[in-house]
Amino acid sequence: MALISPSGRLRRTPFSDGVEAAGVKAYTVYNRMLLPTVFESVEADYHHLKKAVQIWDVSCERQVELRGPDATQLMQLLTPRPLAKMQVGQCYYVPIVDEAGGMLNDPVAVKLADDRWWISIADSDLLLWVKGVAYGRDLDVTIDEPDVSPLGVQGPLADDLMARVFGETVRDVRFFRFGRFDFQGRSLVVARSGYSKQGGFEIYLEGSDLGMPLWTALMEAGRDLDVRAGCPNLIERIEGGLLSYGNDMTRANTPFECGLDLLCKVGPEANCIGHSALQACAEEGPVQQIRAMEIAGDAVPGCDRLWPLFDDGRQVGHVSSAVWSPDYQTNVAVAMVRKDHWEPGTRLQVQTPVGKRGAVVREGFWA
Amino acid sequence: MALISPSGRLRRTPFSDGVEAAGVKAYTVYNRMLLPTVFESVEADYHHLKKAVQIWDVSCERQVELRGPDATQLMQLLTPRPLAKMQVGQCYYVPIVDEAGGMLNDPVAVKLADDRWWISIADSDLLLWVKGVAYGRDLDVTIDEPDVSPLGVQGPLADDLMARVFGETVRDVRFFRFGRFDFQGRSLVVARSGYSKQGGFEIYLEGSDLGMPLWTALMEAGRDLDVRAGCPNLIERIEGGLLSYGNDMTRANTPFECGLDLLCKVGPEANCIGHSALQACAEEGPVQQIRAMEIAGDAVPGCDRLWPLFDDGRQVGHVSSAVWSPDYQTNVAVAMVRKDHWEPGTRLQVQTPVGKRGAVVREGFWA
Repeated sequence: MALISPSGRLRRTPFSDGVEAAGVKAYTVYNRMLLPTVFESVEADYHHLKKAVQIWDVSCERQVELRGPDATQLMQLLTPRPLAKMQVGQCYYVPIVDEAGGMLNDPVAVKLADDRWWISIADSDLLLWVKGVAYGRDLDVTIDEPDVSPLGVQGPLADDLMARVFGETVRDVRFFRFGRFDFQGRSLVVARSGYSKQGGFEIYLEGSDLGMPLWTALMEAGRDLDVRAGCPNLIERIEGGLLSYGNDMTRANTPFECGLDLLCKVGPEANCIGHSALQACAEEGPVQQIRAMEIAGDAVPGCDRLWPLFDDGRQVGHVSSAVWSPDYQTNVAVAMVRKDHWEPGTRLQVQTPVGKRGAVVREGFWA
Repeated sequence: MALISPSGRLRRTPFSDGVEAAGVKAYTVYNRMLLPTVFESVEADYHHLKKAVQIWDVSCERQVELRGPDATQLMQLLTPRPLAKMQVGQCYYVPIVDEAGGMLNDPVAVKLADDRWWISIADSDLLLWVKGVAYGRDLDVTIDEPDVSPLGVQGPLADDLMARVFGETVRDVRFFRFGRFDFQGRSLVVARSGYSKQGGFEIYLEGSDLGMPLWTALMEAGRDLDVRAGCPNLIERIEGGLLSYGNDMTRANTPFECGLDLLCKVGPEANCIGHSALQACAEEGPVQQIRAMEIAGDAVPGCDRLWPLFDDGRQVGHVSSAVWSPDYQTNVAVAMVRKDHWEPGTRLQVQTPVGKRGAVVREGFWA
């Protein structure tokens, strides 16, 4: 791995002091902010995540706040997912597409009030798109990045740890819902969500000054639960089929190619940005789509670029994420595969940095 | 320095193979792309840059291409700098501001034709802002990120090296102008510009496949000129007063605070986005502004966050970039200083990670 130069442009977070004290070994940069990637090792972090509880500094999931009379109208303009039935207190995973139906981000929308939303973003400056559209359409809405930094609490013991800090009622928060819970006199949004399949919460810390007190309170309350600093884990997220914007999909892909068909309402009543492009996609069907894929042989190296997928010398897609899974004893991967080769069981070849390997399309992800 | 995990999301460039072969030691991430920061050492790279010639992989200066009947109208909507007199073949440094007059980017606009522009961006997804505005305003313009990757050729021997690869006429390209020059049968935009004060060019490589052939041609042609792989140099850029978007300014700052008054046409005839906010700024004048600043004592560590500036315990600004300058034998810095303390010679204190230091406001930058 290469070194990363210190720079104010790669922003620290309210939890960076805790992350450093916990011995972070590597970072990535996400939304121009430091996101830890390794503490003990990717494999050790993975085993621990599956059996205990971890605190994740995911401040890099920045919020785009929409506030004002036109906030809800704008939110629906931004996504093909219907929001009419969404209640205050709910979180929705929403594809955001441009006028051509290309994915701009795959964030979680948090409905705080009828005229106030947070969009908890993946790795692109969605703020600029939202501001640009609102400016161009002359909408009555204020758009900004508030001082909100999510902290993940993930793992099978997450409920126990959270109950100790926020009280027993936090256990009642349902999946992709949030409640407001008190911490040191301040009311924080706490959602049952997160970028793992191990269960847990995301605490939307509002006010950076409370960052280290919150970090420390969770670490101290969970000592006997073996709580540790953690981070989104490459192995666990591929096993679970959690996609990564910028890796597994970009603006070049439609939501249909990403397997998000069910979240895209098309038809005459739809009026989001890109709806006519999406309508055409829905009618024709995608020519390629994301698939889980198994890569033969021993552990592949880090996937820092697309690896082409071949059928008998003809390229039929690419692998975008891959890693060795200790639990499944194979290389687990995310691939974009052309229609005529995406059936489960299809055998292909993938060009990795360590040579050509066999690869098989799977029915679904592992977990 | 911490390690950076490999990820496809942190994009490689057409020159990455050359950068690696040249022994890159560290990177930063800029527009979700790898940007080298150190080859031999920041100091050795600096001395070499000032006396020879370097090849810089600045592919991360991504292009936003505007193409179509409304391209020029949109371009003028985006910036307060008047563009009416700009000719095809010119490059302009243009502040881009939002509706509140906050800096969204400080790119270089390249006028390719009356209906075709590139915006060579600093570190923010300006593409999304431009697309959002164009969508909202229903403008007849196509906006995209083309396969264009700038390669810098910087240093006092840049002209000699470029002449060997592109012919003697490349010497005639004037500052912030570009010409089209042939390389292996393809016509490339070559501008006299770059993020150093040592002189040189930026080659806008169109077509990634030509990346390594171009890199290799320059390296081989310049062997006796001691050409080396290099990168924007922290010391040289602070000495020269070259600002860094995301470090020295953000969306929270107006162009007036950044000292870009002369590039902002305000008044009744101006009609760019944010013009009324800028008009108010121009009338009131900024309450803080960027200043060159000298920090006393021996070499300060890397500035990975804002360092507060004090006058007798009261905060009056912050330092955003700082490094030891071997040539000037002092710590050179960029600071944002409040009006009542920005006069040259004003003595302040700065809180660095290694303690409080004396700091003096300078008349201007060093080079």
